[in-house]
Amino acid sequence: MGLDANKQQTWFTEYQTDSLSLGLRVETILASDTTPFQKLLVAETETFGRLLALDGAVQTTARDEFVYHEMITHVPLFMLDAPKKVAVIGGGDGGAIREILKHPSVEEAHLVEIDAEVVEASRRFFPEISCALDDPRTSIHYTDGIRWVKEARNFDLIIVDSTDPVGPAEGLFQPQFYQTIADALTDDGLMVAQSESPFLHQPLIRHMREGLETAFPHIKLYLAAIPTYPSGLWSFLMASRKSPAPSPRHLTLNLETRYWTPQLQTAAFVLPRFVEELMA
Amino acid sequence: MGLDANKQQTWFTEYQTDSLSLGLRVETILASDTTPFQKLLVAETETFGRLLALDGAVQTTARDEFVYHEMITHVPLFMLDAPKKVAVIGGGDGGAIREILKHPSVEEAHLVEIDAEVVEASRRFFPEISCALDDPRTSIHYTDGIRWVKEARNFDLIIVDSTDPVGPAEGLFQPQFYQTIADALTDDGLMVAQSESPFLHQPLIRHMREGLETAFPHIKLYLAAIPTYPSGLWSFLMASRKSPAPSPRHLTLNLETRYWTPQLQTAAFVLPRFVEELMA
Repeated sequence: MGLDANKQQTWFTEYQTDSLSLGLRVETILASDTTPFQKLLVAETETFGRLLALDGAVQTTARDEFVYHEMITHVPLFMLDAPKKVAVIGGGDGGAIREILKHPSVEEAHLVEIDAEVVEASRRFFPEISCALDDPRTSIHYTDGIRWVKEARNFDLIIVDSTDPVGPAEGLFQPQFYQTIADALTDDGLMVAQSESPFLHQPLIRHMREGLETAFPHIKLYLAAIPTYPSGLWSFLMASRKSPAPSPRHLTLNLETRYWTPQLQTAAFVLPRFVEELMA
Repeated sequence: MGLDANKQQTWFTEYQTDSLSLGLRVETILASDTTPFQKLLVAETETFGRLLALDGAVQTTARDEFVYHEMITHVPLFMLDAPKKVAVIGGGDGGAIREILKHPSVEEAHLVEIDAEVVEASRRFFPEISCALDDPRTSIHYTDGIRWVKEARNFDLIIVDSTDPVGPAEGLFQPQFYQTIADALTDDGLMVAQSESPFLHQPLIRHMREGLETAFPHIKLYLAAIPTYPSGLWSFLMASRKSPAPSPRHLTLNLETRYWTPQLQTAAFVLPRFVEELMA
């Protein structure tokens, strides 16, 4: 990540790999801190509105956050007839919680975030993303997700909404963690994890799939288009004991969404051939 | 577009908008010319392999060209039972022609490219993309696409494989051109045009759709994920006199592809809600 002043322009540049970068012109830097866990930046960008970056990587922007937050939540939630207990590991901005609470059956939404300063920054700078964090159904746990999941039981859905597999999130990509999650789910329960880009991170996706296979018999991958994430195409791995199928309520619950639709609930699993082959 | 030497690194930077950039680290510059129509650059990049850029905008890279070329051709071709005559306006790299000729019914594939130097650069630097340009079914016409289409008749499919709507390609986004194409098609014929990013170019997509509606009763939009194009999500507008439906042969012709699949033939038309609304 570099902030280069040039002709009175400030740019946020994420080096997505050693040889690939995304640049966003910045109007104002709103916060630039070092938390106990990572570097945190909040900036107003011209193309994507307000930006939250951790360790130099885009986490969320005001203009495209809806894609990630809708797709990491509604796709697994609509595989369940009446999800009641849901947990999000990571996801301190609160966007996943906001979407989860759109499902009327949900009674408990747990946010397990190691870095309280991410939640604070989201409350302060992203009110439209963090708006459900004060909902009475939400509990926030500032702790290590791996430890927290060991005590968790009877969850319908656990979402691993992590940063990249370096730094504080590294353990969230390990097979042992997936087994711990499996033990925390009901028999009909599901887990979903963000699994990076099928164009750029194929070894990681394979590694995650193999890890998930040690804990779950059914693994599926689905896709969504997220402009500010590397390559613009993002994947999600879903794992479960039973073979998942959309609940009829995906056709009847009229959700306010900007990306997810009832038709995308199945079309998101239709993969380009090179991604099919990665999952074969 | 800028080539910045910094710590012995060379980067190709495309300013996709005033405030959004994509950077690709370059190993070698292979060609950097000014043709009678545009600036042409060929470079070897680390992440996406060989790159062709025109007027500073990525046209094609060795590693992701398959997405664009498969999706701009097979989706409309599989709406037809036996496409015989096909034309590509633009597309001087030859990638669309390569895919078109995978359909055994095709007897004539016409490439109408205004800039002969694009074709020459592709023959020299992208043999795996330009490989079908010497096929006996291929005819190359170095001329203005608008003028050429005025004389064309009985085409099953005309593909507008243009650069961005500035510079030499501007006229390819005008309603009058769409009427000329309609006159060049058979009754069952189709046209398809690349229509930029639904995240970044909504006014253009609306303008193109309205222009197409003056010439065709049926307009549909479909999507594909192309990492080196702005936002990573790309759209294609398909227009026809009759309501299009996939031909049964999309299930039986066993094509060698890396992106297109028989399931994507329909799933590519399942749109995120904000894109559905753009087309409503």
